[in-house]
Amino acid sequence: MLGAADNELLTRTGPNTDMGRYFRCFWMPIALSRELPDCDGAPIKVKVLGEDLIAFRATDGRVGLVEPTCPHRGANLFFGRNEDCAIRCVYHGWKFDLEGNAIEMPNVPPDAKYHAEMRIKAYPTREFAEMVWAWMGPLPSSPSQLPPLPALEVGLVPPEHRFVSKKLQQCNWAQSIEGALDTAHFSFLHMPAPNVATTSNPNANADQKRLQWMRNDPMPQFSFVDHDAGFVAGASRRADGNELYWRISQFLTPNHSLAPNALPGENYQGQTWVPISDTECWIYTYAWNPLRELSAVERNKLTSGHGVIGETGPDFIPLSNRNNDYRINREDQKHKTFTGVNGVSEQDAMIQDSQGLIADRTLEHLTPTDAAVVRFRRVVLKGARELSAGVAPKVATNCEAYCVRSGSTIAAENLSFADVMLQRFDNPIGQVQSVKQKELE
Amino acid sequence: MLGAADNELLTRTGPNTDMGRYFRCFWMPIALSRELPDCDGAPIKVKVLGEDLIAFRATDGRVGLVEPTCPHRGANLFFGRNEDCAIRCVYHGWKFDLEGNAIEMPNVPPDAKYHAEMRIKAYPTREFAEMVWAWMGPLPSSPSQLPPLPALEVGLVPPEHRFVSKKLQQCNWAQSIEGALDTAHFSFLHMPAPNVATTSNPNANADQKRLQWMRNDPMPQFSFVDHDAGFVAGASRRADGNELYWRISQFLTPNHSLAPNALPGENYQGQTWVPISDTECWIYTYAWNPLRELSAVERNKLTSGHGVIGETGPDFIPLSNRNNDYRINREDQKHKTFTGVNGVSEQDAMIQDSQGLIADRTLEHLTPTDAAVVRFRRVVLKGARELSAGVAPKVATNCEAYCVRSGSTIAAENLSFADVMLQRFDNPIGQVQSVKQKELE
Amino acid sequence: MLGAADNELLTRTGPNTDMGRYFRCFWMPIALSRELPDCDGAPIKVKVLGEDLIAFRATDGRVGLVEPTCPHRGANLFFGRNEDCAIRCVYHGWKFDLEGNAIEMPNVPPDAKYHAEMRIKAYPTREFAEMVWAWMGPLPSSPSQLPPLPALEVGLVPPEHRFVSKKLQQCNWAQSIEGALDTAHFSFLHMPAPNVATTSNPNANADQKRLQWMRNDPMPQFSFVDHDAGFVAGASRRADGNELYWRISQFLTPNHSLAPNALPGENYQGQTWVPISDTECWIYTYAWNPLRELSAVERNKLTSGHGVIGETGPDFIPLSNRNNDYRINREDQKHKTFTGVNGVSEQDAMIQDSQGLIADRTLEHLTPTDAAVVRFRRVVLKGARELSAGVAPKVATNCEAYCVRSGSTIAAENLSFADVMLQRFDNPIGQVQSVKQKELE
Repeated sequence: MLGAADNELLTRTGPNTDMGRYFRCFWMPIALSRELPDCDGAPIKVKVLGEDLIAFRATDGRVGLVEPTCPHRGANLFFGRNEDCAIRCVYHGWKFDLEGNAIEMPNVPPDAKYHAEMRIKAYPTREFAEMVWAWMGPLPSSPSQLPPLPALEVGLVPPEHRFVSKKLQQCNWAQSIEGALDTAHFSFLHMPAPNVATTSNPNANADQKRLQWMRNDPMPQFSFVDHDAGFVAGASRRADGNELYWRISQFLTPNHSLAPNALPGENYQGQTWVPISDTECWIYTYAWNPLRELSAVERNKLTSGHGVIGETGPDFIPLSNRNNDYRINREDQKHKTFTGVNGVSEQDAMIQDSQGLIADRTLEHLTPTDAAVVRFRRVVLKGARELSAGVAPKVATNCEAYCVRSGSTIAAENLSFADVMLQRFDNPIGQVQSVKQKELE
Repeated sequence: MLGAADNELLTRTGPNTDMGRYFRCFWMPIALSRELPDCDGAPIKVKVLGEDLIAFRATDGRVGLVEPTCPHRGANLFFGRNEDCAIRCVYHGWKFDLEGNAIEMPNVPPDAKYHAEMRIKAYPTREFAEMVWAWMGPLPSSPSQLPPLPALEVGLVPPEHRFVSKKLQQCNWAQSIEGALDTAHFSFLHMPAPNVATTSNPNANADQKRLQWMRNDPMPQFSFVDHDAGFVAGASRRADGNELYWRISQFLTPNHSLAPNALPGENYQGQTWVPISDTECWIYTYAWNPLRELSAVERNKLTSGHGVIGETGPDFIPLSNRNNDYRINREDQKHKTFTGVNGVSEQDAMIQDSQGLIADRTLEHLTPTDAAVVRFRRVVLKGARELSAGVAPKVATNCEAYCVRSGSTIAAENLSFADVMLQRFDNPIGQVQSVKQKELE
Repeated sequence: MLGAADNELLTRTGPNTDMGRYFRCFWMPIALSRELPDCDGAPIKVKVLGEDLIAFRATDGRVGLVEPTCPHRGANLFFGRNEDCAIRCVYHGWKFDLEGNAIEMPNVPPDAKYHAEMRIKAYPTREFAEMVWAWMGPLPSSPSQLPPLPALEVGLVPPEHRFVSKKLQQCNWAQSIEGALDTAHFSFLHMPAPNVATTSNPNANADQKRLQWMRNDPMPQFSFVDHDAGFVAGASRRADGNELYWRISQFLTPNHSLAPNALPGENYQGQTWVPISDTECWIYTYAWNPLRELSAVERNKLTSGHGVIGETGPDFIPLSNRNNDYRINREDQKHKTFTGVNGVSEQDAMIQDSQGLIADRTLEHLTPTDAAVVRFRRVVLKGARELSAGVAPKVATNCEAYCVRSGSTIAAENLSFADVMLQRFDNPIGQVQSVKQKELE
C-alpha cells in the first residue's frame, strides 16, 4: 500500500504538481498525426496533463500547440482561422504564430508598446511514430537544444511495419499502467471461463499452450533488471517438463510500457499513457514488426482491436467502456470467458476503471506478484522527488534508452533471468543494438 | 416546522449519522427477490443507506450482499464471477464467501499471515414477502441471534394472495413517507377536477361516495393510538347522515406505512421506504388479500400501477417522474383531474419530489391536519436520539408488532376512534391475531 | 482589464449582490407574452437574476409571478392549478392571489391567527412590447407608485411594425452585452472569408459597400455622447472619397443595447439581456420600423434568424449553440465566411460564449477599439456602487430616456459626431421626439 500523500504524488500531473513537473521533463504524445490530416485544416481541442490546448497543422505542415485563450478579450482560438502558418482569432483578428507570438493585432495602433511583447503559451512539437509529441517543459534558449524524442522502436521501423492508434481510459493514468506491468493477472482476467478446456495436446505449440500454463500458475515469479529508462520485468510460470514460460515487459519512465506477449517472430506491442486530467487518460497503442511489413489481415485485426489495442469508435473512445459496463455478457462469463467482456484491451480497461477514478492505494493489500507495480511506483516517485530537489532526470536526454523490446519465451528452468534475456533478446536489457543492421536488412 | 438540526437528523441515513444508525437496527429490503432470479446469476449493484454494495444469488440460493471493493488492489467485485457460493475477483482471482471471508487468494504464498484474516464487509440477508432483506447493524456472535424479520402480513399470506413491486422516488425518504401518512391531501391531490361531478346519487355505495366525502371535507379530524411499532392514525370526514368516513393508516418504525384506502373486503396496500442516498429512495410497494387469491384482472391492474403501486419500466423507475414533469397534462388538469397527472402513486411522487431533494422543514407552516406527519417525526427522532444515548429500539426484536392492518370504514359519528378500530379490525391497534385462524381458513 | 473584485461586481446579479440590487431598480423582461398565451393556462418555470419563480396568466389576463414554494409544506406551485385569478397548491389546496396573499387555506381552522398573514413572494408585472416585465425591487406602498416601464420605441409602435423574440445565451450577461457594444469586431467576426470578394463596383450603393469598408478598416474611431440612460457610441471607418461610414449604437442601463446596423429607412434592432443565473441569460431581441408595417418576407426572415435575432427552436434555444460548437463548418470557414458559423447572432453567441462561462477580465489586454466596452463597464459599476452607497439610479424613473434610436450613416469626414447625430437622427442623442408626429403619420 501507499500512504495518502504518496498516492497523491503518484497520481496528480497538473501544472503545479511534482509528478506533473516530472512528466514535463519528457516529450508527450498529444495526438495521432492523422487527427490533423490537412495543412490549414480544422484545429482540434486537446487536453494534456490538465491543460486545455488547441492543436492545428499549419500551412507548412508543422503542428501548432497553443493555449486557446486570446490575450485581447479572452475569445477561444479553437474557433479561430488556421491560416498562413498562424492561428487568427475571429473576434478582432489577432494572429499568433506557432511560437505563440502575436504577429498581427489589427485593432491596435501601430505605435502601441505591446506589439512586440504580446504572446500566448505555445509548445514545440515533433512527429514520430505517427504521433504528434509536445515539449511542455522549460524552454531552452534555442529549439535545437531541445532533448531528442525517445527512440521507441515503433518509430524507427518503416510505416508499413507498424500500426499506431489510441484509446480513452476513464481513470487515472497510474493504475492503468500498473495494470500493464502486473502480468500476473493474465491467469484470471484474460482467461477462458474455467469450464473451457485449454489444450491438453502434448504436441501443441507454445502459442497454443500458453493459456494453459498461465491458468495453471497464478503466482508467477518476478525478476527484474533496472536500466537507465526504467526496468525490464520477467515473470516466469511453469511450462512443460523442466521449462519455464517467461513473460517479459518493459517500463520506460515516466509513461511507457511494452507488452510481454510476443513470442519470437510475433509482433511487438506497446503503450504510452498521457493524462488528460487526473481521472482520464489517452493510451497511445502500437504494434510493430521490425522484420517485415504487417499483413492486411494483421492490420484489419488490429483496427478492430487486438491485444492492448482497443476497439474504438472514430473518436478513439472504446466501444466497451465505463458507461456501458464494458458490454459485459454474463452468459459469456459463465461459459466462454472469465470476465464476460470481449477483448484483452477491454478487460484491462474494465478492471482498471473499476479501481475507481483514482485508485485509493491506502486500502490495498499487495502480494509478491505485485512486484512490478511496486517497482514502477518507486521509479516515478523517486524521479518526481529528485526533480523537486533540483535533480532533473538524466534519461530525458538519453533517447537510445527507450529503444528496447519485450516479449515471451520458453526457457530451461535453470536459466537465470539474465540468461533468459540474452537468449530472447541478445541483450541483457532488451536493447535494440541497431534496427537497421540487425533486423531490417 | 423543524429546526435545521432536527431536519438534518431526520433526513440523513448514511453510515455515520444518528438516523442511519437507527435504520441499521432494523432489517431493510435491498432488492426484490426477482431481481436475482438465478443461482450463480449476474450480480447487481445496490446502494442502500448511502452504501455502495453488490448482491448476488449464490449457488445454493442464498443472497450475498457485500462491499464491492476487493482488498487486494481495489478492483470492483461487481464484475466478478458468481461461482461456488462465492464471488471471485476477476483481476487476480481472490474469492470471498457470503460472510465476506477471503477463501482463495491464488497469488498469495500459502504461508502468508493474512490468509485467515482477509475479509470484506458482508451483510446477512433473508428473503420474505418476495423481497431480499439485509441486516446492516452490528453482528451478533451467532447468526441465530439475529432479530426476526418484521412480520408484515404481506409476507405471511400465500404468494397467490399478494403482489409486490418497487418504485424509485427521487427525493429524501422522510418527506415521501410523510406524504403517505398525511391522508388529508386526498381532498385535493387525488381528486377529479373541480368541475367533474362526484356522485350525488343518495343510493350510491360507499366506494362511489368516498370521493365526494373527501372533496367536501378538506380538514379531517385526526385520532391516534400509539403502539409498540409506531402508531395507527385515523382521519375522519363527514359522510352521509350521522356517519363519519374514517381513513386509517399505520406507521411502523422506521420506514413502513400501510395505506388507508381499503374498505372491508378490499385489498390492503403498504409501502416500505429504503433510502438509496439522502436524495433518492426505493419504495417497496405491496398489495395483499388475506382472504383470497388476487385475480388476474387485479394483478394486471397492479402491474400497470394502482393506488400506491406505481407504473414503472423494467428498471422500476416510474414512467412519470421528475425528469418529465410526471407527464403532466394541463388540459386534464382543467377538465379531468386536480393535478393533470395520472395515477395516485404518480401524484404522490410529484408532490413529494416537488418539496425539494430534501424538504426544508424550517420554512413550513403546519396545520392540525399535519398531525400524523408530526407524530411520525416524533417517533423516529426519539428513536434515533435514544439510540444515540445507548438505548436500542425494543421493537426491533418484536416482529409481531408489524403484523397490523389499515383501511377505511364508515361509522356512526358518536363512536370513538377506539370503538371504530374494534368495529373495523376487531382489535384496538389493527393487529392480526392469527392470519391462519381468522382469515385464511 | 478589470481587477478581480470589479469582475465579480460586474458579473454577479443574484439577490444579495450589488449588481443584483442595481438590476432590481429597473423593470426586467421575464418572458415573452406569447409564452403565456391563455388565461388560466399552464404556469411556466422562469429563473431570473438567480431566483426560481413561476409565471402564469390569470383568469383576468394579468400575469402572476411568484416564488414556487408553498409555505405550508413546501410543495411546488408549478404543479398548481391556475384558477380564479390565483394559483392553488394541489397538495392541500392553499390558494394565493397575484399579490402573493394566501386567500384560501382549506385545512386551516377558520380561527387560526395566520389566515391574514400568510403570503408568498410575488412580483408586480406589466406587458409591453410583447414582453412580460417584472418589478423585482422594493415595493412602494401603492402599485400606482411603481416607476414607469422604459419607453423603448419597439413597444410604442403598432404590433404590425415590430418583431419580438428571445434567445438563450450560454454565458454571463456582461460579456454578451459587451459583444454588442464592441462594433469593431464586425471587421472580422461577421465578414466573408478573406478570399471572398466584397464589391469593388464604384457605383454600388452603401448597403453593398459596407462590408468592404468594414473589411478595409479594422480599427474604427470611437466617439461618445453620454445621456441619462447611458450613452450613444459612434464608430467611424473610412468610406469612399472624403466620407466616413458611421455605425452608431446605444447602451441603455443596465441591460439594453440598440444595434448599429440600420441605414436610414432600414429596420431598427435591439436587445435586452436578462440574467437567468450568472452563467446563462435570456436575450430579448426585437426589430421594428416606426414608419411602416414589417412585410411578410421580413417577418419570415426574422423568424429564421437575422441580424441580432437568432434562429432558435420552439424553446428559444439557438439551434447553433455551445453544445454543438455552433455547427461550425471548417470548409465554409476556408471559403465562405470568416468563422464557418452561419448567422450574425450565432457568430456573436459563439465568440461571447467562448470567453468562458464568466469572462476573466483580469487577463485581457484592451485596445482603443474597446472604448465602448470600457464605457459600459464604467456606467454599470458606477450605478451599482452608488446604489450601494444609498443613491438610487435616477434614470429608473425616467422612462423617456429609453426612447432612442441607433443606426448607420455615411457622412463627410469633417463632420463631428455631434453633427453626425443631428444629420442621422435629428437629435444629439438619437432621442425620438414623438413617434406619432414624426414618423407614423
